This record gives sequence, structure tokens and C-alpha cells, in this order.
Amino acid sequence: MDRMPEDIPHPSLDEIRIERVLHALADPIRLHLVRELARLDTGVACGSIDLPITKSTRTHHLRTLREAGVVTIHPAGTSRITTLRRADLDTLYPGLLDGILNAPH
Amino acid sequence: MDRMPEDIPHPSLDEIRIERVLHALADPIRLHLVRELARLDTGVACGSIDLPITKSTRTHHLRTLREAGVVTIHPAGTSRITTLRRADLDTLYPGLLDGILNAPH
Repeated sequence: MDRMPEDIPHPSLDEIRIERVLHALADPIRLHLVRELARLDTGVACGSIDLPITKSTRTHHLRTLREAGVVTIHPAGTSRITTLRRADLDTLYPGLLDGILNAPH
Repeated sequence: MDRMPEDIPHPSLDEIRIERVLHALADPIRLHLVRELARLDTGVACGSIDLPITKSTRTHHLRTLREAGVVTIHPAGTSRITTLRRADLDTLYPGLLDGILNAPH
């Protein structure tokens, strides 16, 4: 029987905490990733968003976003697909994400 | 001629940056201060919000909030009045503050 190569944990809706979400979004690199995920409006392979950072730094930022409840990360073949938890965040904190995504600066 | 005992700097609207606002709000103590300021809906003397922290820690958190553009702090006699920059934040990031203040957890 096939098994997933790894089981990546994600916080459930009632485990997500506003302080952790805000901390995750307060970093310029992570905010850029979230803005790109929102713009693309689909799950994307980790490497497909262009960033001047190493792979390990990218992995660290994606883990911070995942653990805060901002994105899901799921294996797909040899890749991992990252998706913004837009509906979940809009349910928990109506207005928050739009307020951030539309920020002029 | 009277002079203000000190001139406390505040970022102007176009100096406020979303990353710094999010960082300022990502701390539980600072988030509590902001929630209380929003609930009271008026400027308050620094010490009037009850918190189990030292005066110097409180001062540190209030400075972080002020420098990010989240509150104003102005001397009034021997006290300092802290006020949430609600209108400014709602202008820059519509929905953001309400999304945070209404957060269930």
C-alpha cells in the first residue's frame, strides 16, 4: 500500500493564533511569498517564486508560514505544492489579509 | 517661552511600513495594549492599562508601537498620553485592524 513520503503537519483552524500569523507576515521575504501566492491564486511549487535567497532559507520561511497556518504544503511527486490558506484566514480574521495584500507600503 | 519637555517623533503616513506594523502587533503584550486602546477609544496615560510587566518593559513596547506608526504618544503634564492611530491605519490598510481586533484567537 502506498504511503505519503512524509506527513507534513498543519495547524487546524482552532489552532491558528493571530500573534503567530502576524509574526509570519511581518518578514519582507515571507510577505513577498504570500503576495505572490495570492496573486497567482493557486498552489505553486516552492521554487517557482523567484527570490534572491538560498533554498534552505526559502524552506525556513515556508515552514514558518506553514506552522503559523498561513499556507499549506503538500507533496506532489518530487515537488511540494504551497498554497495560501486564504479561505481559512478570511474566515478567522475577515479583512486582515486584504488589508495586508493591498498595503501601499 | 514654554517648550515641550521633549519632542517625541512619530512616522508620517507615508513613512509607515506594513512589515513594521505587523511586527509591532505580533507580540502578545503589544496586541493586548492595542486591543485595550481600541476598546477604550480614547488616549490613555501609559500606566492605566493593567499589565504584569515592569515599567521599562512597558516603555519598550510602547516605543515599538509608536515607531511602527501604531500609536501616538504625547506628553500631558507629568504624564504621557498614548492613542491608537486608528484612522491612519484604517486609511493605509483598510480591514487590517478590524481583522486583528476581532480575532477569535
